[in-house]
Amino acid sequence: MSQRVLTGITTTGTLHLGNYVGAIRPAIAASREPGVESFYFMADYHALIKCDEPDRIERSRLQIAATWLAAGLDPAKVTFYRQSDVPEIPELTWLLTCVTSKGQMNRAHAYKAAVDANVAAGEDPDANVSMGLYSYPILMAADILMFNAHRVPVGKDQVQHIEMARDVAQRFNHLFGQGEEFFVLPEAQVDAEMELLPGLDGRKMSKSYDNVIPLFEGGAKALREAIARIVTDSKLPGEPKEPEGSALVTIYDAFATPAQRTAFRHELRQGLAWGEAKQRLYDLIDAEIGPMRAHYDALMAHPERIEAALQEGAAKARGLAGPLLARLREAVGLRRFQPLKTTVADAPKAKAALPVFKQYREADGRFYFKLSAHDGRVLLQSEAFAGGRDAGEWVKKLKTEGAAALAGAPVTRAEGVTEHDVAEALTALLAAAE
Amino acid sequence: MSQRVLTGITTTGTLHLGNYVGAIRPAIAASREPGVESFYFMADYHALIKCDEPDRIERSRLQIAATWLAAGLDPAKVTFYRQSDVPEIPELTWLLTCVTSKGQMNRAHAYKAAVDANVAAGEDPDANVSMGLYSYPILMAADILMFNAHRVPVGKDQVQHIEMARDVAQRFNHLFGQGEEFFVLPEAQVDAEMELLPGLDGRKMSKSYDNVIPLFEGGAKALREAIARIVTDSKLPGEPKEPEGSALVTIYDAFATPAQRTAFRHELRQGLAWGEAKQRLYDLIDAEIGPMRAHYDALMAHPERIEAALQEGAAKARGLAGPLLARLREAVGLRRFQPLKTTVADAPKAKAALPVFKQYREADGRFYFKLSAHDGRVLLQSEAFAGGRDAGEWVKKLKTEGAAALAGAPVTRAEGVTEHDVAEALTALLAAAE
Repeated sequence: MSQRVLTGITTTGTLHLGNYVGAIRPAIAASREPGVESFYFMADYHALIKCDEPDRIERSRLQIAATWLAAGLDPAKVTFYRQSDVPEIPELTWLLTCVTSKGQMNRAHAYKAAVDANVAAGEDPDANVSMGLYSYPILMAADILMFNAHRVPVGKDQVQHIEMARDVAQRFNHLFGQGEEFFVLPEAQVDAEMELLPGLDGRKMSKSYDNVIPLFEGGAKALREAIARIVTDSKLPGEPKEPEGSALVTIYDAFATPAQRTAFRHELRQGLAWGEAKQRLYDLIDAEIGPMRAHYDALMAHPERIEAALQEGAAKARGLAGPLLARLREAVGLRRFQPLKTTVADAPKAKAALPVFKQYREADGRFYFKLSAHDGRVLLQSEAFAGGRDAGEWVKKLKTEGAAALAGAPVTRAEGVTEHDVAEALTALLAAAE
Repeated sequence: MSQRVLTGITTTGTLHLGNYVGAIRPAIAASREPGVESFYFMADYHALIKCDEPDRIERSRLQIAATWLAAGLDPAKVTFYRQSDVPEIPELTWLLTCVTSKGQMNRAHAYKAAVDANVAAGEDPDANVSMGLYSYPILMAADILMFNAHRVPVGKDQVQHIEMARDVAQRFNHLFGQGEEFFVLPEAQVDAEMELLPGLDGRKMSKSYDNVIPLFEGGAKALREAIARIVTDSKLPGEPKEPEGSALVTIYDAFATPAQRTAFRHELRQGLAWGEAKQRLYDLIDAEIGPMRAHYDALMAHPERIEAALQEGAAKARGLAGPLLARLREAVGLRRFQPLKTTVADAPKAKAALPVFKQYREADGRFYFKLSAHDGRVLLQSEAFAGGRDAGEWVKKLKTEGAAALAGAPVTRAEGVTEHDVAEALTALLAAAE
């Protein structure tokens, strides 16, 4: 069976070149590996936790979907869907909620960080903590388990959540599986070599540093302008320049072949002007990004095409989620009421569940009886009778009078059997006879 | 607008006469009041919190549904459904989760009681507390708000949960309503005069006291046997008996008319034997319960009929839940991607999407026209005309006669444009002109 890999896509914010190099490009490359079945979803239920600006959620979600499609994600090869188009996910979330211990949520990093900050500020530990923030690891477990993903590429800060998903999967399998494994135990795939692109100022490219190079937004012009603002040293044209440690060169590397990298370094050492170097960087990036940008613009002009792709993805996702959820519902007891096929079988079953008297003759020629519990355990053993008739009369007496007839009966309790066991068995027989 | 009243039905355990008198009978009577729109649902998602015995959940759910139907709940007049048949409810639960503060859940009685018990036992405060137990007030809020119930009949211990539902409704309305009130603020309806039936021993009838009179299970025989075990004093037949304070009389009252109550007391004071009194009690109860029991047995023999009733109920419930959830999703930003706003207004959209003829004069002083597709791509280019009038006449001809006028028209198709493209464009123009 192929490996299922599931990637959640945050749907807030807009994307920059660092996101492309660090996350989107490698994820799309991974989706083309053979033997891999890839799931990419827009995590928009998660977006509701932090963001109560509906228009921002909407716009951002559209841009991000367009970006992934434009960057080469092929919805025919992968399952690309919006989380919020799969109602099976919140339903599974509730099933998992019932088997998740609260103590486990208390240990989640994101929640603990919020509590620590509150305590440091002298606030109530739970001040401004929403139930969304607190319980989202369960939603995340549902995201993963719904599709029985084997691997989940995540950052280090998310490894704990994958472990929680494993735990809850194990607990569910154990409680309800009866030998059946409903859920694959997912594994976190932490990409050690995830590229961190430097920003304009050389620090990690991040919106919070305001040092980003936009990916598609603003077009070629915005790309060119951002590149022009990459900080370099003030060496003049003709002066030799040291390529190592330059943010410009690191960004160049992220798009260059090994030969291009070597050539670029050589030219810089030979005195290539920074302005010229920036032009080469622009040309290099735009050769890769430019065609994608045209695709992006075309998609953004027709949101209904993105919608159509996501609807198809949702149909594929639900085609998998629906049958699994049906099995889970069956397992926990949320079943449709069926015609009583079992009635017929029930009657023998009711009998089978009763204790049984057995009469028999031993090799010694004498007659005996014993009383066995419904599970076959011997409760009472009779003494030997000369005739079968005597044995039968005692059986009848015990059957009709119950425990009251025990006093004086020629029987012995089997080892480990209590008076109560015997009385209960005889009472059950009495009740069944009525 | 009629008042919506929503009643949740616990789906674990089996029902006894005390449940019937205290809860089922008054609820069914209430469902027949004019001006009331009643919702009754089997709270089976809630059942998962405490019970991980799927077969028990299944059986209990069936018995309880059959009981309500047999006791007179009319699924044609009310909306009677299983919570777990309405996937909109867990989805709404997540939307509400994101606007519920954790502090509020910390204050929920059921959770606090569990913590107190743990602390008293020297355990971790959250020992054995599941996220289901902790967060079920949010599910309960979703149960109520999903149908915009005005009133929720509950016991005193549940009043807090209704208040939580009000709070979260208010917060959601405030955050996302923009003047629109998505949710009615529900009110708890605590029935002060809810009848508590005594059990066999005079204490409140309760399974935990093992003093119950079964409702339907076990048939008339079980009813008669239970009544025979009601504890009385040991006054002999003929001796005057004090009716007040007798559990038997209190149970009798629950089924009797005022005239019957008076007569029964009189007879007891006159020396009616307890055995005879029990016979009268049996006759009185069985006159009410007997026909229902027959209905119950018939339903239990055909679970598929109960299923059909619940499926109809689920369809009614989802008919209300679906449109409301769609509005809520829109409000929080979980929206379908629409064709861009510029093309959204209907009439302009139709025009914008149409091919266009353009007439113009070139630098050479001559007149031209061209036909462009709705996306701006040039389809036809005219030859040069000496006068604008000639050009205009051709445009008119092509517009009114469509592709039929192409033969002989002084036009050339642009590169890559097929005859089909042009015919389609002219047909679209013709259709729009009509």
